[in-house]
Amino acid sequence: MQLVTIEDIRAAARRMSGAVVRTPLVPCVWSDDDRPLWLKPENLQAIGAFKVRGAHNALAKLAPEVRARGVVAYSSGNHAQAVAYAARVASVTATIVIDDTAPGLKVAATRALGAEVRLVPLDQREAVAVELARDLGATLIPPFNHPDVIAGQGTIGLEIAEDLPDVAVVLVPISGGGLASGIGVAIKALCPGAAVFGVEPELAADTRDSLRAGELVRWPAAQRVRTSADGLRAEPSELTFAHLREVLDGILTVSEAEIRSTVGLLARRARIVAEPSGAVAPAAYLHRADELPAGPTVAVVSGGNIDPVLFDEILRETPATG
Amino acid sequence: MQLVTIEDIRAAARRMSGAVVRTPLVPCVWSDDDRPLWLKPENLQAIGAFKVRGAHNALAKLAPEVRARGVVAYSSGNHAQAVAYAARVASVTATIVIDDTAPGLKVAATRALGAEVRLVPLDQREAVAVELARDLGATLIPPFNHPDVIAGQGTIGLEIAEDLPDVAVVLVPISGGGLASGIGVAIKALCPGAAVFGVEPELAADTRDSLRAGELVRWPAAQRVRTSADGLRAEPSELTFAHLREVLDGILTVSEAEIRSTVGLLARRARIVAEPSGAVAPAAYLHRADELPAGPTVAVVSGGNIDPVLFDEILRETPATG
Repeated sequence: MQLVTIEDIRAAARRMSGAVVRTPLVPCVWSDDDRPLWLKPENLQAIGAFKVRGAHNALAKLAPEVRARGVVAYSSGNHAQAVAYAARVASVTATIVIDDTAPGLKVAATRALGAEVRLVPLDQREAVAVELARDLGATLIPPFNHPDVIAGQGTIGLEIAEDLPDVAVVLVPISGGGLASGIGVAIKALCPGAAVFGVEPELAADTRDSLRAGELVRWPAAQRVRTSADGLRAEPSELTFAHLREVLDGILTVSEAEIRSTVGLLARRARIVAEPSGAVAPAAYLHRADELPAGPTVAVVSGGNIDPVLFDEILRETPATG
Repeated sequence: MQLVTIEDIRAAARRMSGAVVRTPLVPCVWSDDDRPLWLKPENLQAIGAFKVRGAHNALAKLAPEVRARGVVAYSSGNHAQAVAYAARVASVTATIVIDDTAPGLKVAATRALGAEVRLVPLDQREAVAVELARDLGATLIPPFNHPDVIAGQGTIGLEIAEDLPDVAVVLVPISGGGLASGIGVAIKALCPGAAVFGVEPELAADTRDSLRAGELVRWPAAQRVRTSADGLRAEPSELTFAHLREVLDGILTVSEAEIRSTVGLLARRARIVAEPSGAVAPAAYLHRADELPAGPTVAVVSGGNIDPVLFDEILRETPATG
């Protein structure tokens, strides 16, 4: 299988300039001296998550006459808004298929970005999107299972290597695996001495099981939906799994309580709003020190689209001192 | 009076590389079409506020043998931690004089950065700091009344001009005026068509009165302390006032209710934690549109060190839709 290369990622970065926030590394003065921590705050992207990088790269790579016929995506999460936003930046039409049980807030946010939204039953989402793309002559932008999407997410790794060339450990959340695949390729190419660890919720640790087994192990959806990290309920594809086997040094899992308390700590001490999925990498730093090498560490905060009621609840249980 | 120049600010930027976070501009998809808004999130600095820029520049400019004798500052706010942090980065000794009524949390945070803390009654703070500096042969780093501090804060304006050369409006909070002085000098030099507005709380609008009168008008401290924006209770010096008269196109004021609701909106929709002082510039964007020109607008979020209890309280009164 053809894997994404560092050249693909460099090309993605050139396409992305101006359309995507070039996030800084945020130093954490409260981290351990022998393993100083920096956060990569992708919650600062226009739609509050890293997904806009892959969406933008996939759109930008389309031939102008293809792009002009518009794009389609199916998602109830950050990918919906990422494609809607990237399409708006590129002045093309986006149609997003969302399941009819998704929160009204997410539907409204996607519409506010100028996308047309189709609400359908969850189990028809993908089929409707495929049909729509065919009927419209539009291009389907997948959330992770595409080399251009992986290369787009990989620009995060490129930026980490630029800003902290002596990084020793990079912690990345894993869901469908596009983010970790792209970042892993970039880090292994540019900082070969650094270790890249994936992080999953204990309640959705299918990728850990897959890596142990050496082949894709599927967890029933009913199990994966239990985690509060709603962005981490997808599973790797053959394409992303092939990357993960190549670039990951290991996988760590974190508990729901650890995810919650890390959301609170990030608000109190790093002054950023993270969603549960965005907090798993810093949670692994905080709670899995014994499974990690020492040295300069980067934890990717993948997004900040947290349910407001949940955020308030978590803050109430977070002590003032963090 | 000799004003800070764009060359001073460029030199400060060269000194600062690596020691200070190069913050991005964060696009706000919810802003008005004819005046798109970007935030400059200085809450992402290591100590949660822009103050580290000026402190770092002032330290870096000292001759090595002078710097080796250490630095002294007096502050109960972000300047204390900024000097402590900059001193730690430069491996020099910092002694910070804090009033004995300051919250224990702030004292602990300053000590955690490696500074020695002296607690004294509020009215003796400055005198003790001056005496200490003399006894130790150390250098006093003032919070705003110094060209090197102003030039350091001005690097924010340099970055805004680099990232958004066609910026039309820049909104900056005003307290002692060092931040607005530095940013104003940079913007007027690099984006001469852009308007720079200072923003004050209605309850501490002494600089508005001073600009109207053409000379420094003092508000009694008892009045200035009423605002929840505790970082905006200082007054300009002759030096910063001379800059502000030169570079500001106007001053806007915002109410306490507007400041509070903006802290909530920034958490909900921009996914950043701002302190009340850090929210006044976006509050002016939101609530003073009729007093502002149209066009691309940047609001500086100066810091994120909000009292946790206040933050939780504000979130409870902020609707889920922001």
